[in-house]
Amino acid sequence: MKVNGKHYRSLWWNAENDVLEIIDQRWLPHDFRTQTVGTMEEFADAIVEMRVRGAPLIGATAAYAMALAMKIDPSNDHLEKSWQYFNATRPTAVNLRWALDRCKNVLLPLSEDQRADAALELAHEIADEDVEINAQIGKHGLAIIQEIAKSKKPGETINILTHCNAGWLATVDWGTATSPMYQAHDAGIPIHVWVDETRPRNQGALTSWELGSHGVPHTYIVDNAGGHLMQHGMVDLVIVGTDRTTSRGDVCNKIGTYLKALAAKANNVPFYVALPSPTIDWTIADGVADIPIEERNAQETTHIQGLMPDGCIQTVQVTPEGTPGGNPAFDVTPNNLVTGLITERGVTPATTEGLQSMFPEFAQPAATAMKAGG
Amino acid sequence: MKVNGKHYRSLWWNAENDVLEIIDQRWLPHDFRTQTVGTMEEFADAIVEMRVRGAPLIGATAAYAMALAMKIDPSNDHLEKSWQYFNATRPTAVNLRWALDRCKNVLLPLSEDQRADAALELAHEIADEDVEINAQIGKHGLAIIQEIAKSKKPGETINILTHCNAGWLATVDWGTATSPMYQAHDAGIPIHVWVDETRPRNQGALTSWELGSHGVPHTYIVDNAGGHLMQHGMVDLVIVGTDRTTSRGDVCNKIGTYLKALAAKANNVPFYVALPSPTIDWTIADGVADIPIEERNAQETTHIQGLMPDGCIQTVQVTPEGTPGGNPAFDVTPNNLVTGLITERGVTPATTEGLQSMFPEFAQPAATAMKAGG
Repeated sequence: MKVNGKHYRSLWWNAENDVLEIIDQRWLPHDFRTQTVGTMEEFADAIVEMRVRGAPLIGATAAYAMALAMKIDPSNDHLEKSWQYFNATRPTAVNLRWALDRCKNVLLPLSEDQRADAALELAHEIADEDVEINAQIGKHGLAIIQEIAKSKKPGETINILTHCNAGWLATVDWGTATSPMYQAHDAGIPIHVWVDETRPRNQGALTSWELGSHGVPHTYIVDNAGGHLMQHGMVDLVIVGTDRTTSRGDVCNKIGTYLKALAAKANNVPFYVALPSPTIDWTIADGVADIPIEERNAQETTHIQGLMPDGCIQTVQVTPEGTPGGNPAFDVTPNNLVTGLITERGVTPATTEGLQSMFPEFAQPAATAMKAGG
Repeated sequence: MKVNGKHYRSLWWNAENDVLEIIDQRWLPHDFRTQTVGTMEEFADAIVEMRVRGAPLIGATAAYAMALAMKIDPSNDHLEKSWQYFNATRPTAVNLRWALDRCKNVLLPLSEDQRADAALELAHEIADEDVEINAQIGKHGLAIIQEIAKSKKPGETINILTHCNAGWLATVDWGTATSPMYQAHDAGIPIHVWVDETRPRNQGALTSWELGSHGVPHTYIVDNAGGHLMQHGMVDLVIVGTDRTTSRGDVCNKIGTYLKALAAKANNVPFYVALPSPTIDWTIADGVADIPIEERNAQETTHIQGLMPDGCIQTVQVTPEGTPGGNPAFDVTPNNLVTGLITERGVTPATTEGLQSMFPEFAQPAATAMKAGG
């Protein structure tokens, strides 16, 4: 999306110098810095140090890393060693592994002299696929916003609340939850976004940076404020992203999402979840019972990072010395609180039937039998 | 309550030197500093600079301020001037005005030579009354906790969630929401408190300081976490304070309280509100419609204060430069989400009937007629 009037992806290929360009996200939201990534070590650093973050972006970066590896040495041995090297950069990132495997599977059958070109082609393809998926999510989400616009006076602002950063910075472009917002804004629909701060890591500051850079009107609020705003008719719809959605549409997303879903239900505010279909976990139905929730370092709750008046980035301690902190990183929103799931194929109810009919190729034989039997 | 093993009130009379001692709360939760207040200017400063904070504590401080004024010069003229002087320190603090009026009404009819002693006596009385009200709230809240303890295995911990700081620091002693917690802990009931951070002003850090200083087990969590904890059976009850409660039991409290009440209802967790009866506003029934919500400075959301590694207290900016912030300071929890109101007279349902039967002297003739008619 746009930064200072110029369109950016979160990574892009510099064909002239045969290198990848990325945004070094460690400096955001305070400073916009781009960086050239041209060596194996620079690729590994970019992922390890979280200069790039967000599952789709990490996957695309890894694909370009494999392209470099094949340019340096396209042998089977180097292919395998590079897979190992990059896979170790963030061992728990599912998309990293997925992208590396995809590259290996495509490249291994090829002759060595074909691999460099094919690997670069594949990296472009993986990046473009992500953009296309998110563009489709945006298109289907835009239709929801257009529908709400019809119930308003011409020119009246549509207020959208979002939580965390399911934005273009975490993908290659568009983002997931933000994609409908960008498309609505670009289509001239007057929208305004309530941006949840999203404690403890304050990803709302990234979302604010994104929206501000693209020119989308928005207001940064503490996570506590959303219920009050909904109670007073100041939110027309909620759109959030998800880290994992179960086969019946329970939504695991950043901690606090569940509270907003409860408030939306209580105040008849539509609550939508934007998701690329690969984030659906077809093996799990009951999200509350079956999704283990990561407990992260308590220091994320007791200390906060920000910009000092002198321009340095500093961390301050908010709590008394030695205060014990608890830090569950995600929560699960049961499907009965979800108005709809916005996928790249369209909008579906958050139900087993809805998801199965939209993605029939994933429908489990057992589930199909049960459905037929019921 | 206790600090380093010694019992403190948030203010106390030093009879030896004829001065008031306070805790300079500006340094909390990072540093515990007490201060002597012995001049008119020091009293005014203590209130203006928020060395003392919280409605009951401000009221008691003002009463001691009037005692000093009467010692200096007990004339009618000085009584009136002192009323004006102290009333201007925080013009919107209802308890400040209430305490000053009470002093004036008691002192004016007295002869000048009686006023200094009477004023000091009255200040002690106002402080002790607050302690007694909160002790009673604690007693009634303790009964609720004891009842929950009966449903648990012997020795099993009772988990209580609270929001903001309705603690002893905001009162003379005990606090409101915290009073049942201190009494349960002191009675040997094993409790653990989930302390909501309470963005944007992070009053949870004060609550953590209080509980930690008194030895009550607790964990500091972000405001986003409570729903998840309730969903997983990790919260046995919620107790919060209130700034204003309507005649039917709608509860206006720190922003974010409503979200916790929704989560409590959805997960069958009892949700109690601790309140001294003076915070009941008998003139209003519908809190969502009729309580105006203060919109505070947006910088409270975009900037955060904390302790630097070098021991200095510093403010850092979390959001990008120029990000617009929204900052509604309170929200209203409708009475249907409230399990009960813990007052100094006992626990009542959050209903018109419940409140009227507990405080019959405040029952409006019109409301009584309606009730009789219905």
